[in-house]
Amino acid sequence: MPLVRLAEHFERLPGIGKKSAQRLAFHVLNMPKDRAEDFARCILEAREKIHRCACCQNLTDQPLCEICADPKRDGSVICVVEDPQDVLAFERTKEYHGKYHVLHGLISPMAGIGPEQLYLKELLARIPKEGVQEVIMATNPTVEGEATAMYLAKLLKPLGVKTTRLAYGIPVGGNLEYADEVTLYRALSGRSEI
Amino acid sequence: MPLVRLAEHFERLPGIGKKSAQRLAFHVLNMPKDRAEDFARCILEAREKIHRCACCQNLTDQPLCEICADPKRDGSVICVVEDPQDVLAFERTKEYHGKYHVLHGLISPMAGIGPEQLYLKELLARIPKEGVQEVIMATNPTVEGEATAMYLAKLLKPLGVKTTRLAYGIPVGGNLEYADEVTLYRALSGRSEI
Repeated sequence: MPLVRLAEHFERLPGIGKKSAQRLAFHVLNMPKDRAEDFARCILEAREKIHRCACCQNLTDQPLCEICADPKRDGSVICVVEDPQDVLAFERTKEYHGKYHVLHGLISPMAGIGPEQLYLKELLARIPKEGVQEVIMATNPTVEGEATAMYLAKLLKPLGVKTTRLAYGIPVGGNLEYADEVTLYRALSGRSEI
Repeated sequence: MPLVRLAEHFERLPGIGKKSAQRLAFHVLNMPKDRAEDFARCILEAREKIHRCACCQNLTDQPLCEICADPKRDGSVICVVEDPQDVLAFERTKEYHGKYHVLHGLISPMAGIGPEQLYLKELLARIPKEGVQEVIMATNPTVEGEATAMYLAKLLKPLGVKTTRLAYGIPVGGNLEYADEVTLYRALSGRSEI
């Protein structure tokens, strides 16, 4: 029965349980016909048309992504992130005007991901070509994120480019009481004058 | 960009926020091709092939739904529910062996839904035709659910069929402390000997 199969598809998506999947399947059933058709088309098109940007490896349906193609973006700074989602997160701040480089993963011996599986070569090639002055390491503050940042910093050193990383500290609106020891220590050691 | 449009489709689904929608869209992007194609096909097929059962109005892709077509189900009892989801909930108990009737809504003057928009006529026609002995009102314990059950009970009375409704009480595994007054009162007045 197609309804059961549709619910199974929803259930396989991350963060959706059996009951939600069922509710979503019934919702699709009650959608206007053209919207359901567009939904189905988007699933197929997203897979067919989306590929990596030739420059920064972010996802796009153009040869170059919007950010790489934008002449107003500062090409002297590259922010290195793990995933395309991270690019969206930085773009939401509206405060970053440089470019990006998406690694599509982190070095993780546990998961069998070595440096050669990430888009590091492509990043190194961009440094002289685009006259990059600074590379900001914006990988997640996890073991893998740290290891990848360190590894990359070593590769970048001989190229004479400045390498920085995001500040660690208390999240804005967060509560000191609930901050873990490591975060608190990092916030303390990274303190600045006011 | 198809990815953004796909995320917008996910966001329109009930209970999915902006961030989850984005995560789901990226997930679809990384799906195996055949699974994404099957997902899209299921959305279209669910809408095209699923319709109401000619007898109980439950959703099905056959002329008669599985339950109505099953000769082992007891045709003398009909459980009246609001939605097809409720049928699934009862089927999960594996303890109900009668048939169902799906109203596809409840009487709600606020939402402009009158009795004529529900499948009441179809239910009344089944009583003599199928030799029904008992109709169980299994609408939700809300104002609309109660009103619909009362209205339907009145219609059924002249047909000489027994009309019952679900027991109210403390949910199994629930805590007395957290039960609201009405539920507690209903549990008290519906008490039985042990």
